[in-house]
Amino acid sequence: MTSLCAVALKVEFFYGMSFLVAAIAFAFAFYLYLWVKKHKVENAKIQEVSKLISQGANTFIKREYKILAVFAAVLAVIIFVLLPTPVWKSSDIVGGNLAMAISYILGTVFSAIAGKIGIMVATLSNGRTAEAARAEAGDEQGIDKATKKSFLMGFRGGSVMGLLVVGCSLLGVAAVLWVVDDASILLGFSFGASSLALFAKAGGGIFTKTADVAADLTGKVELGIPEDDPRNPAVIADNVGDNVGDVAGMGADLFDSNVAAMASALVLAGGDAVNESMIFCYGILGLLSSVIGIATARIGKKGTPTKALNMSTYVTTAIFLALTALATWLFEGFSWKIWGCAAAGLIVGVIIGLATDFFTDDTKPIVKKCARASKSGPAFTILSGISYGFISALPAMVGIAASALISYHLGGVFGISMAAVGMLSIVGMIISNDAYGPIVDNARGLAEMGGLGEETIRIADELDSAGNTVKAVTKGFSISAAGLTVISLLSAFMAEANAALLAAGKPLITGFDIMDPVVFFGILIGAVIPAVFSAMLMLGVDRNAQRMVKEIHRQFDTIDGLREGTAKPEYNACINLATAGSLKELIPAGLVAIVSTVVVGIIGGARAIGGFLLGNIVSGLLLALFMSNAGGLWDNSKKYVESGHEGGKGSNAHKAAVIGDTVGDPFKDTAGPSINTQITVVSLVASLLSSLFVAISLL
Amino acid sequence: MTSLCAVALKVEFFYGMSFLVAAIAFAFAFYLYLWVKKHKVENAKIQEVSKLISQGANTFIKREYKILAVFAAVLAVIIFVLLPTPVWKSSDIVGGNLAMAISYILGTVFSAIAGKIGIMVATLSNGRTAEAARAEAGDEQGIDKATKKSFLMGFRGGSVMGLLVVGCSLLGVAAVLWVVDDASILLGFSFGASSLALFAKAGGGIFTKTADVAADLTGKVELGIPEDDPRNPAVIADNVGDNVGDVAGMGADLFDSNVAAMASALVLAGGDAVNESMIFCYGILGLLSSVIGIATARIGKKGTPTKALNMSTYVTTAIFLALTALATWLFEGFSWKIWGCAAAGLIVGVIIGLATDFFTDDTKPIVKKCARASKSGPAFTILSGISYGFISALPAMVGIAASALISYHLGGVFGISMAAVGMLSIVGMIISNDAYGPIVDNARGLAEMGGLGEETIRIADELDSAGNTVKAVTKGFSISAAGLTVISLLSAFMAEANAALLAAGKPLITGFDIMDPVVFFGILIGAVIPAVFSAMLMLGVDRNAQRMVKEIHRQFDTIDGLREGTAKPEYNACINLATAGSLKELIPAGLVAIVSTVVVGIIGGARAIGGFLLGNIVSGLLLALFMSNAGGLWDNSKKYVESGHEGGKGSNAHKAAVIGDTVGDPFKDTAGPSINTQITVVSLVASLLSSLFVAISLL
Repeated sequence: MTSLCAVALKVEFFYGMSFLVAAIAFAFAFYLYLWVKKHKVENAKIQEVSKLISQGANTFIKREYKILAVFAAVLAVIIFVLLPTPVWKSSDIVGGNLAMAISYILGTVFSAIAGKIGIMVATLSNGRTAEAARAEAGDEQGIDKATKKSFLMGFRGGSVMGLLVVGCSLLGVAAVLWVVDDASILLGFSFGASSLALFAKAGGGIFTKTADVAADLTGKVELGIPEDDPRNPAVIADNVGDNVGDVAGMGADLFDSNVAAMASALVLAGGDAVNESMIFCYGILGLLSSVIGIATARIGKKGTPTKALNMSTYVTTAIFLALTALATWLFEGFSWKIWGCAAAGLIVGVIIGLATDFFTDDTKPIVKKCARASKSGPAFTILSGISYGFISALPAMVGIAASALISYHLGGVFGISMAAVGMLSIVGMIISNDAYGPIVDNARGLAEMGGLGEETIRIADELDSAGNTVKAVTKGFSISAAGLTVISLLSAFMAEANAALLAAGKPLITGFDIMDPVVFFGILIGAVIPAVFSAMLMLGVDRNAQRMVKEIHRQFDTIDGLREGTAKPEYNACINLATAGSLKELIPAGLVAIVSTVVVGIIGGARAIGGFLLGNIVSGLLLALFMSNAGGLWDNSKKYVESGHEGGKGSNAHKAAVIGDTVGDPFKDTAGPSINTQITVVSLVASLLSSLFVAISLL
Repeated sequence: MTSLCAVALKVEFFYGMSFLVAAIAFAFAFYLYLWVKKHKVENAKIQEVSKLISQGANTFIKREYKILAVFAAVLAVIIFVLLPTPVWKSSDIVGGNLAMAISYILGTVFSAIAGKIGIMVATLSNGRTAEAARAEAGDEQGIDKATKKSFLMGFRGGSVMGLLVVGCSLLGVAAVLWVVDDASILLGFSFGASSLALFAKAGGGIFTKTADVAADLTGKVELGIPEDDPRNPAVIADNVGDNVGDVAGMGADLFDSNVAAMASALVLAGGDAVNESMIFCYGILGLLSSVIGIATARIGKKGTPTKALNMSTYVTTAIFLALTALATWLFEGFSWKIWGCAAAGLIVGVIIGLATDFFTDDTKPIVKKCARASKSGPAFTILSGISYGFISALPAMVGIAASALISYHLGGVFGISMAAVGMLSIVGMIISNDAYGPIVDNARGLAEMGGLGEETIRIADELDSAGNTVKAVTKGFSISAAGLTVISLLSAFMAEANAALLAAGKPLITGFDIMDPVVFFGILIGAVIPAVFSAMLMLGVDRNAQRMVKEIHRQFDTIDGLREGTAKPEYNACINLATAGSLKELIPAGLVAIVSTVVVGIIGGARAIGGFLLGNIVSGLLLALFMSNAGGLWDNSKKYVESGHEGGKGSNAHKAAVIGDTVGDPFKDTAGPSINTQITVVSLVASLLSSLFVAISLL
């Protein structure tokens, strides 16, 4: 064992292992891609529509990446000129500012590549998942087989994204640190990931809900045609939106959180070789556990899709805990206390997921209560959803608070960052579960458009419903993980600020005192930003949807035969409109967050920023949990009513539940989960500008 | 001038002046009462209904005070046994624990008396306001005269509450301090005021919305009868609710804030005679300014009711600033910097009021946007209201942050508490404006029920609309004032905790560091409590309303001739149901807030409580502003549509706007403004239990 220990204490060993395991993950992802691809799509209609969705998603991704490239280029120049030290003051431009700028660009590029490939495979899988679900009514064995096969197709298609995200983040972090050996440069990489996430998550979120809302408003409400009806010009945009928001957006969001967690842990490790080794080791083992979890996921003998998804999460969790315990036992210097931190983070994450499930699963009482309230009218659907949404934040907030407290007791501030690393260790699995959702959702639509028959649609519905349930859970999980990550980012900010203070020969910051009115000033303003940010996104969805409704009306007015189904709508017009609009609406919201950070920093210096970050985290977590859970609750209440309860489809309760769901859509798919990204962006802007803010404090 | 100065520095002079000015306020209130009373109600129907409302309000008040008496008695015993020091450890039971317990009881009693008399005069004024509005169509001069007279009746009726609240709080605070000469005993008085406010504001809020919602659901929606139709069994309860929620509830809330502001300023004055003198002097001059503002309020030559209400606020503000400047110039030792703090608080308060107005006034763009969104359906009304509600919190949060920062720079922590005192100085005027609302709202209903004709109803409508506009402003004002007050309560908590630490010979707390995970733990949990508290109140309204709907159905089913208007409904059954239900629903919510404070304190000690209070204030402010403003916005959007825009009454936009208004009702009248009280209750519980928490920290 002595030889092992000697190796262990060299961080370089773990860099190497990171490259190796990332390569394994990529190879496995490639295998899954081939596996999905070898199944052929036979139905011509499905082939055609699936291709349209794939092209549409690529249109969005291309346009998004183009704007992002400009944005990133500008920021890279600013970073090069100013960070970590203004070039005119810097003695080491290449090792410092240039490294930071390159690191930033790499952060965007790595995340972009993962997103691009993930989307490609997801849009490849949807049609195949639909075809795999083909079965005849009455043929029990056939149905069972089709369900299992279709599930596997959807899940494996989604897993590619999961593997790529975690592989890319591990590879990127290890590579940057291997080259420059300075953890603070990683903040640049992390900020790059955040920039992309801002565009992918918030922009994608606006896109998806624009299309969804416009399609519903014109299709279901005005024309009375069913969801996914190919006559609706917005129907392809709607399906594109699912991929753009949930595959690319969610992936970028979790890439961002994962990188931020590792980066802040590495900053807090303060160059200690054992600590750094542990961080990489945990990252590596997390990815390995996800690979195993993904490889073994399938519907068991008496299983259901939901059980299969949940089981794979539990399997991954258990494997991770076992492997890290083994590593702690094997490698000298690895601390059991730090293992405890990671375990606490991960277990709390799972508990939060379960609590979220309690509030959003339609077999549990809350969804039923909301459905019952709908009988009194839409106002009661809304009040019920908002109320339970507020209450649903309680377990997660308590869970995060508890895990922060426990891990601090075990390992100090570094311990908190390791709780975040632990919580995010199974992120490969989480993303796979999440990306499964839009694939099976698409598959359901494709089965309908391809005329694959009632039984196939029923199977697709079952798979889709499992996706919805699991999605709520993964969202709660990812928000909590972001929360814990940002606590360590706060510490990272203080570490960076202190580095600047040390350089100036000034006394260091030891903390941010609530009773200090400058801190308090920052707290209040930081707290209101997530509210404003999410409001701007929701208003953006609304404006954009109104534009699309106009375009749909134009098409119905000018294209002969569209209403009758003899002519084809111009799907691309809607996709382009959603794309252009979403990016346009996103930018002001992003600027509000970034500019307010800079303004508060300029007014109040480093202390105000400390408060600002805290306020931002606290209210951001609360609102993100509230909005995501309320949205999930409304969505499933509607589905619960549609499945025949409280009067079923067409009843007043149903109408009310549909209104709840429409409100919930931008809550859960645009505003709520984008707050994560907003928090991370703001934290990283603060950390990057820390020397500037410190300079102002010293004036 | 020398003699004046010598007097000035004796606090006793200001005690005496407080008694004198409180007596002036009481005398003026009595004059207004007589003025209102001398006008007779001639219409028999109005007489009858007005009496029913008055009796109903008394039923609620009586029941509420009875339960409160039990609650207060239990708490008084607990206080006597434990606070400030456990009796078995206390050397001075009479001066310490007994004084605290008596002070607590006095706090409830003073507030209760103000509430009881205020309600009495308000319910006396409503019928008279209706009669005063009698005018014939076409008779321009008569209309003008009736509008002015009716306005005066409503305003003066409401002013009695304003004068009593401020008079009682000034009298109470001065009396307690005069007898015991120990500011920390005032925390007991303040906690008494909070206990009452919790019942009056949150309980009253549940009552009023229970009745409102149930009346609308059965009347407007099911039976298609107009609002205020006497056949609806809930109609009297609805009118009672306005008085109970807005007169008694709002009064108790502001009594609570006002006392808390003075108490925490006095604790922070730390026995300094000049500082204590300034606090009383500002309180006295604030009351005097309100007396002048109230005495001179009327509709000018070309004025409107809204202008008259706003003008009286500005007049009071200007007089207060002038008088306090004069006092600062006259009295030796009075600091211009402290005057600056109070001025900053007051001016920021007025600015926040104006910003609130921007978001909720139907002549401004936001309300119009929300009305336009309603054309796309109720989901868009809701999304628009929630979004703008979130954004509307921005100016207030920035305003509070700025005034805290400015006043700290001018006068330290004591300066912040004086900013709160300044902001609350015109509270007499604010309550008068607010209590005007339910009186004219009732008057409108009475004019309808009494058959006073179209023109009279139109006048009453105009007065009512002014009340709504001003109400939104006063709500923003009172929430902000509470925010600023609670910041000083946080300091008061630290002062109390340090007193306990000093007694134990331990090192003092110098602040609460965000980076301290124990503090952070408290922050996260504190932040989620207002969300849970408000959710519980909203669910309580819903449950209670459902019960009342059942009762209304029962009456329509069992009372022959009710539908046709030949038989009378059992109004009292609805009133009793709303009363019992509201108190029942309130208690769990109140307990959650109190128990969570105690639990966090026991787990984490004083540091966790510091964080808990901060989290509570920050998220509480955000949610209170959001909910109050969104509610006001929806209310006025509905009115805007009803006045003929976006399709007018009966259009789809109108239906959607009505749904928005129904959601907004518990937002703005139950949950939003009750959060104030929740924050104060929690802060005071923490301050009172500080020695206990400190003892735990020391274990």
